[in-house]
Amino acid sequence: MRPSKRANDELRTVTLERAVARYAEGSCLVTFGQTKVLCTASLEERGPPWLRGSGKGWVTAEYSMLPRATHERTRREVNSGKPSGRTQEIQRLIGRSLRAVTNLPAIGERQITVDCDVIQADGGTRTAAITGAWIALHDCFTWMRGRSIISVDPLREHVAAISCGIYKGTPVLDLEYAEDSAAETDANFVMTGSGGLVEVQGTAEGKPFSEAELIELLRLARGGVEQLVSLQKQAIA
Amino acid sequence: MRPSKRANDELRTVTLERAVARYAEGSCLVTFGQTKVLCTASLEERGPPWLRGSGKGWVTAEYSMLPRATHERTRREVNSGKPSGRTQEIQRLIGRSLRAVTNLPAIGERQITVDCDVIQADGGTRTAAITGAWIALHDCFTWMRGRSIISVDPLREHVAAISCGIYKGTPVLDLEYAEDSAAETDANFVMTGSGGLVEVQGTAEGKPFSEAELIELLRLARGGVEQLVSLQKQAIA
Amino acid sequence: MRPSKRANDELRTVTLERAVARYAEGSCLVTFGQTKVLCTASLEERGPPWLRGSGKGWVTAEYSMLPRATHERTRREVNSGKPSGRTQEIQRLIGRSLRAVTNLPAIGERQITVDCDVIQADGGTRTAAITGAWIALHDCFTWMRGRSIISVDPLREHVAAISCGIYKGTPVLDLEYAEDSAAETDANFVMTGSGGLVEVQGTAEGKPFSEAELIELLRLARGGVEQLVSLQKQAIA
Amino acid sequence: MRPSKRANDELRTVTLERAVARYAEGSCLVTFGQTKVLCTASLEERGPPWLRGSGKGWVTAEYSMLPRATHERTRREVNSGKPSGRTQEIQRLIGRSLRAVTNLPAIGERQITVDCDVIQADGGTRTAAITGAWIALHDCFTWMRGRSIISVDPLREHVAAISCGIYKGTPVLDLEYAEDSAAETDANFVMTGSGGLVEVQGTAEGKPFSEAELIELLRLARGGVEQLVSLQKQAIA
Amino acid sequence: MRPSKRANDELRTVTLERAVARYAEGSCLVTFGQTKVLCTASLEERGPPWLRGSGKGWVTAEYSMLPRATHERTRREVNSGKPSGRTQEIQRLIGRSLRAVTNLPAIGERQITVDCDVIQADGGTRTAAITGAWIALHDCFTWMRGRSIISVDPLREHVAAISCGIYKGTPVLDLEYAEDSAAETDANFVMTGSGGLVEVQGTAEGKPFSEAELIELLRLARGGVEQLVSLQKQAIA
Amino acid sequence: MRPSKRANDELRTVTLERAVARYAEGSCLVTFGQTKVLCTASLEERGPPWLRGSGKGWVTAEYSMLPRATHERTRREVNSGKPSGRTQEIQRLIGRSLRAVTNLPAIGERQITVDCDVIQADGGTRTAAITGAWIALHDCFTWMRGRSIISVDPLREHVAAISCGIYKGTPVLDLEYAEDSAAETDANFVMTGSGGLVEVQGTAEGKPFSEAELIELLRLARGGVEQLVSLQKQAIA
Repeated sequence: MRPSKRANDELRTVTLERAVARYAEGSCLVTFGQTKVLCTASLEERGPPWLRGSGKGWVTAEYSMLPRATHERTRREVNSGKPSGRTQEIQRLIGRSLRAVTNLPAIGERQITVDCDVIQADGGTRTAAITGAWIALHDCFTWMRGRSIISVDPLREHVAAISCGIYKGTPVLDLEYAEDSAAETDANFVMTGSGGLVEVQGTAEGKPFSEAELIELLRLARGGVEQLVSLQKQAIA
Repeated sequence: MRPSKRANDELRTVTLERAVARYAEGSCLVTFGQTKVLCTASLEERGPPWLRGSGKGWVTAEYSMLPRATHERTRREVNSGKPSGRTQEIQRLIGRSLRAVTNLPAIGERQITVDCDVIQADGGTRTAAITGAWIALHDCFTWMRGRSIISVDPLREHVAAISCGIYKGTPVLDLEYAEDSAAETDANFVMTGSGGLVEVQGTAEGKPFSEAELIELLRLARGGVEQLVSLQKQAIA
Repeated sequence: MRPSKRANDELRTVTLERAVARYAEGSCLVTFGQTKVLCTASLEERGPPWLRGSGKGWVTAEYSMLPRATHERTRREVNSGKPSGRTQEIQRLIGRSLRAVTNLPAIGERQITVDCDVIQADGGTRTAAITGAWIALHDCFTWMRGRSIISVDPLREHVAAISCGIYKGTPVLDLEYAEDSAAETDANFVMTGSGGLVEVQGTAEGKPFSEAELIELLRLARGGVEQLVSLQKQAIA
Repeated sequence: MRPSKRANDELRTVTLERAVARYAEGSCLVTFGQTKVLCTASLEERGPPWLRGSGKGWVTAEYSMLPRATHERTRREVNSGKPSGRTQEIQRLIGRSLRAVTNLPAIGERQITVDCDVIQADGGTRTAAITGAWIALHDCFTWMRGRSIISVDPLREHVAAISCGIYKGTPVLDLEYAEDSAAETDANFVMTGSGGLVEVQGTAEGKPFSEAELIELLRLARGGVEQLVSLQKQAIA
Repeated sequence: MRPSKRANDELRTVTLERAVARYAEGSCLVTFGQTKVLCTASLEERGPPWLRGSGKGWVTAEYSMLPRATHERTRREVNSGKPSGRTQEIQRLIGRSLRAVTNLPAIGERQITVDCDVIQADGGTRTAAITGAWIALHDCFTWMRGRSIISVDPLREHVAAISCGIYKGTPVLDLEYAEDSAAETDANFVMTGSGGLVEVQGTAEGKPFSEAELIELLRLARGGVEQLVSLQKQAIA
Repeated sequence: MRPSKRANDELRTVTLERAVARYAEGSCLVTFGQTKVLCTASLEERGPPWLRGSGKGWVTAEYSMLPRATHERTRREVNSGKPSGRTQEIQRLIGRSLRAVTNLPAIGERQITVDCDVIQADGGTRTAAITGAWIALHDCFTWMRGRSIISVDPLREHVAAISCGIYKGTPVLDLEYAEDSAAETDANFVMTGSGGLVEVQGTAEGKPFSEAELIELLRLARGGVEQLVSLQKQAIA
């Protein structure tokens, strides 16, 4: 039995609230149960120097947690001179996921930065961030089209992400913190609206996992991402 | 005429929402018009080494802005190795203001860290932060008393803060960003519930100001802080 | 046809040379074709403070590249104050992989640091590093047993790693640099001698990949790791 | 009674020695009693990039203390990667104070950097620095006019600064270290030769202060700055 | 008697292996007994900005040690934000030594970076590095001439280096670690093929040394460098 | 002919002024012509952790230049996170030189830090610093003996330093900046009062130098140091 009494293939309650940041070109407050991430998409006046002359744009992401997003207060990374390895890994993952469904030349030589700031953390912050970031990016592109900065929608399709894991020997979907910290295997899946895999990451925290278990985790993830994409569609309808 | 059509001595709409962070011992989302600051108070298991044997506690504050709290996206400070001078100046100001009304020995040898994270910035973020931080600290002390960690309330009285400035030659209260960036003089006042001055900071951005102007700014601030303290009292009632 | 004319499921020539570093407790120079990694295992007199009283040991890894390991010279990371995100990600992966097959309490409260320094890089440096690091760690434990520092072998089984990818639409094993930089999908698999999965990482660099492709990559990896484990067995025989 | 037996409105002995640095375009060694600050003004061949095309110049300041300027040796800031928050706050204050009396377009697109290095510290270093920096800047402008780099004097008027505080319940002028470290309220005032206020900073170190006390501190400061400006006039005569 | 039983004026076995790095324009693995240094020379597509328009090229060097090159593991410098003072001192010494025998205008406006990475350290790493770096640089210039990037050989003559010291009261040549750590005086000499002195560094670790001792150290060094230059000549023959 | 018209073996005017810093246990303002260095010796309440239990003390040095000590303003090192390689090299040299004449066990388990801050730089700052630092250290030990912190003088003898160089083909003593920047060879010598060599550093900036030239530089240095030691004796008389 899961701590939350959810079924093994059951998502937490997911909400996607748009236009929550007054100044951003696109924004979304995404919640997966008690996990809350504020995603803002910012059109940058000028992108990195290497974009010039390339004929295409770029989408990048940054990720951070408020210090008291967590059960115990976490120290700010500002004093250590660089984001931690974990933070960098997550922000590269979010950026890659968004670029996998974006037609970069359609943006022109501009950069969109999607900031994902975790307001409250109860497991699955990176997958919630990807799911919400897609909405913020979508709304940023709508804003740009409304001002004729771009003429066609650079988004080719949806992208969303979910975590799975093996908890007390059983594969389960969408781990909250209590499950995540006790899981034997922890996996994250990023998939597109049409079912393509963008990223698969599975890690044995304790004993190694089998190929059969990997395939079961993938099946659970597929079901979860289908629901997330459906919620994204409702949100932007 | 002010951009917002407010009277010269009129505050923006101020709200103080308590218990907004699930894990923090005390928290408050404070808004001054479009300015929004999330304040959380965290009881730290162990304070800095120099507290040991001192017989008293400590209250400190940290301050940060989300990158897209601002009209244009602001770069995160994480890559520069240290908070900027402005950030450090603000967090020291918040800490001093809270300690000015706290009976430190009553906390015991513990540290409370109040994090003030600006979700949206439209001027006056440091004064909003002080006003909301007092609520978060108050609720943290209530939580500690509820668990018998401390026996008496360490808060001696209220503290709140407000900005004033000389805008187009006229002293006005509670500047929003559009006024703040055009003001000739910019001032911040931190006062206690009983009317004592904790901090006065006045800076001529353009031409110097006179003693009469300083006194008028002080008069406006006093009226503003009185209203803020009254709102704090309602919030904790 | 692959640039090297190898079959799709064919490894490059792999060699594992032991005892190459005079002062290290265990060492291995591993080559996967033109990729060369020097792995040394160092018994640290005292581990991190959190080990004390835990009753168990720790295995950690560090990873770096010589500046001219690469086709074009790469700048040293020493000037940037911290290893890059990529470096940190790789060294965490190596450490996790080794710990997955190590009985930590059998080490006692000591730390082994395995340094993996890339002398020459032609793709697959992280998987070569894991494969060679296991040998270095094995020899370090043998050295410790020879001096009665530990009484039983802390290694539970072998661990090795290999990269796969989809190159020109076809899944292939053990990508060299020319393939890796052109692959549509890039994946790394870490597996134990008994066939358990320790880590699966698959990333679509261009278009998303399908579940069928993931399973084919996994099948290739399984064959590759079996050969690597067999080479490890010969090396330590 | 003050430790130095000075009257409440009595400055320490103040000296302003010009041309003390052989290579600087302007320089001044300022002493307020035992506090000694070496101020040098340097004309920079080229200013920051944002000056280009602006049609105006810039005056900035840097501040530092020699390690044994203080009673106990202070660690150098060089190892911490950035000036401390206190240092940054002081150097911004000095810069703002000088710019408040400078006609920036009259400098042309050049930058003057005024370095204020504390040789010995006995309280009031920032106010001594501002008072001496004005002389160094004045002499730098004279040097520039002598070489026809500029044609009119960019200085509009004098600027000087003084600290005040409430010591044992009594407002006093120009605190030395022994008073400063024991004062209940600490304030700094920057004023122009014509009596305008450039900066007012008052902080309650212990109990809050009243409006009447603030006004008395301001009165003391006004008397002090008048004497300092008079000494500046003698120095440049 | 020396620990290695060598005569006082006897070098360790020295080897110079060329073309050991597949991608570098020139490379050399140099060994002085158990000390092993990998030297690679890289032609940089573009040098530092100050080269432009100078009409000449530049040769620079970087130096580092693998963590387990040493008897005890040494921490990597990557976490400290800058090479240590010792590392910087050594890399400046190597660069100066190479430039002393290079005709910089003959390189054109290009930079050659010679990386000296210590694989194993048993004393004398900086002198071995200089001796091997000359070979790598020589081969880089040969490579450039082969591609008609330059037309004449920029190398004017050989350069090599050796350490000497006073060990148990006796001047000896080419100290290994066991001698170096116990020597009363430690000296390094860099000389050209024609016998000119490029650098002399002598340091009393314990009691001061006399002029007569300095001259004896110099005599030993001259003999050692003559042998090293002779080995360089054989290596490139 | 030298720019200053000095004879080849002639020092600049050297002065050693004691007790120039009010709070330091020992201090000396040393001038070599226009070069001015303020040296302060600070008894540190507690030394580095590794001193504990060692039964001996430590003498260390720090070195810095004021930004406008130089002809052109030099940027402060505070923003770069670490002293430059040059600064570290100099401060290690000063520390070694002082320790070479100090009986460390006679200090007890304490640290003396000698700060050498260059007020004005006209060549030879490191040698002036060593010469003045000896006075500051001497006076610090006198202070300690006066308070019975130590019972015997830890200084075994004098130490002083001087630069020499080959300027326009001629060996000369005590180079000022104009000579130093044009010299073909630059050398620094640190010697004790009894004539022992503590440190010899000679560098060919352009063409290599000969053994005969090295010996002539040494002869000049010996004469210079003898005069400096004589001035030190007068200063402390």
